[in-house]
Amino acid sequence: MEDPTQVEQASPAVRKRVQDSFDRQGLMAHLGARITHIGPGRVHIVLPARAEVSQQHGYIHAGATSAVADSAGGYAALTLLPEDCEVLTVEYKINLLAPAVGDHIEAIGTVVRAGRTLTVCRLEVFGVRDDGERKLVASGQQTLIRVSPTQ
Amino acid sequence: MEDPTQVEQASPAVRKRVQDSFDRQGLMAHLGARITHIGPGRVHIVLPARAEVSQQHGYIHAGATSAVADSAGGYAALTLLPEDCEVLTVEYKINLLAPAVGDHIEAIGTVVRAGRTLTVCRLEVFGVRDDGERKLVASGQQTLIRVSPTQ
Amino acid sequence: MEDPTQVEQASPAVRKRVQDSFDRQGLMAHLGARITHIGPGRVHIVLPARAEVSQQHGYIHAGATSAVADSAGGYAALTLLPEDCEVLTVEYKINLLAPAVGDHIEAIGTVVRAGRTLTVCRLEVFGVRDDGERKLVASGQQTLIRVSPTQ
Amino acid sequence: MEDPTQVEQASPAVRKRVQDSFDRQGLMAHLGARITHIGPGRVHIVLPARAEVSQQHGYIHAGATSAVADSAGGYAALTLLPEDCEVLTVEYKINLLAPAVGDHIEAIGTVVRAGRTLTVCRLEVFGVRDDGERKLVASGQQTLIRVSPTQ
Repeated sequence: MEDPTQVEQASPAVRKRVQDSFDRQGLMAHLGARITHIGPGRVHIVLPARAEVSQQHGYIHAGATSAVADSAGGYAALTLLPEDCEVLTVEYKINLLAPAVGDHIEAIGTVVRAGRTLTVCRLEVFGVRDDGERKLVASGQQTLIRVSPTQ
Repeated sequence: MEDPTQVEQASPAVRKRVQDSFDRQGLMAHLGARITHIGPGRVHIVLPARAEVSQQHGYIHAGATSAVADSAGGYAALTLLPEDCEVLTVEYKINLLAPAVGDHIEAIGTVVRAGRTLTVCRLEVFGVRDDGERKLVASGQQTLIRVSPTQ
Repeated sequence: MEDPTQVEQASPAVRKRVQDSFDRQGLMAHLGARITHIGPGRVHIVLPARAEVSQQHGYIHAGATSAVADSAGGYAALTLLPEDCEVLTVEYKINLLAPAVGDHIEAIGTVVRAGRTLTVCRLEVFGVRDDGERKLVASGQQTLIRVSPTQ
Repeated sequence: MEDPTQVEQASPAVRKRVQDSFDRQGLMAHLGARITHIGPGRVHIVLPARAEVSQQHGYIHAGATSAVADSAGGYAALTLLPEDCEVLTVEYKINLLAPAVGDHIEAIGTVVRAGRTLTVCRLEVFGVRDDGERKLVASGQQTLIRVSPTQ
């Protein structure tokens, strides 16, 4: 498990653009998610475990897990696009590999292929305990499309 | 678009079991989702549009759309299982076909195949306006696994 | 199960365009597949069962099932596009619901949403016995992108 | 790009079991595919480019690409199971990232999570030229279920 603080950062302009967009997502604030890393083609989002994001057994809900994974992939794609572009999720597929236990989950979106129109990302979500133990709890793949603001 | 009120209802025992489980999902309450139909192999969940479930352009976030779709499929599967069983989402894939506009979204989970161990559901999400106009905004497919309480 | 012969046919020009493209797919001929219906937004492809398309237990291989499903969806998308356009599969997801038994399989691709750039299709594959018995053996969803010949 | 010859081999018994099963897949022989590496949780399958596996533009057909990717993942899962078990593909999702050009494609299936009942694999397919140039042409994720011979 690599140390996120060792990973390359995106430029200040890109990080500001991603953070500003994230801050406009009502859902991410409502869930309690925050961005913890913005690198070129890679974004990390952390979601603390609490009752408001749980399913019926108390684990983090697959829907919350997916929501932060989807956002991590979307912003990873955005880091590689020109300033005036945005992205929309075309589709994604996610396997819930294990109950999302831990004190928080960390979703990592990584660009696998950046094309002219479409971007494909790998999505990974880890359950993380405060003592540092990490476990892969979800793994997926996402397709995004680049859109211009005037579209 | 068929009228949900015309669709067959599950037995009172099944409906109670589904509703009780749903009520224990902290995320569904936190998002503001509610179950509006519980039939054999089919469940509808409604999520009203509001800032707390939005993405950066004000539409309902793909993550919220997916979360209610995932829950609708999971409970659709549960309606067909013996009383002491539960289900877990193995994986799902969802296409976001159009911006999730409307006054609310309605997610419909429908069992395509109910097997001994695995259940496969179709997931559909409609954007619905208060004047009744409906539009398919997401479509997906989900695999679930049956688990016994003692597992 | 609707009768394919009752389903609307595409125009002769569209049917010719689809059939000509299909005839250039070396894989379809090599597998022994043939198109049996070309309607607007819907294409059927039949693949007879034989040793050359089998997996280790003698059933039709998931890869062969997927290949004809992918082609059925691609040609369904093509029927709705202008004459000078082609489509490429962006991605697809398929559930193998049951062993692909029967004397042949019939793959049906149906357009769910036809957009300016992307088309989304539902994929269904039935195992069919010569006595007419049909069983759904695979179900999936596919995303395609429109490309111009000069691209 | 790691060198497959440097990768750990599975035990002779496991390699024989995988190879024997592969040899019973009529489709793999018919396509011209062969296994080139059998490691614990990882299998490589090579498919040479030729007209019999092409789509309408002469590239390797997405269906052939998917078929070998599906088999690579299935056998990767099999390497980690007890001797008397088999696996069936539950579902997979694959993105076709680029035209499958090259003199052959190499599909690599890698186990991401091996559970008691379900195994999840990552699928990658590279287009490879005889001069050694490699390019990722497809990427996917697959779910498999363990079955006992008596089932």
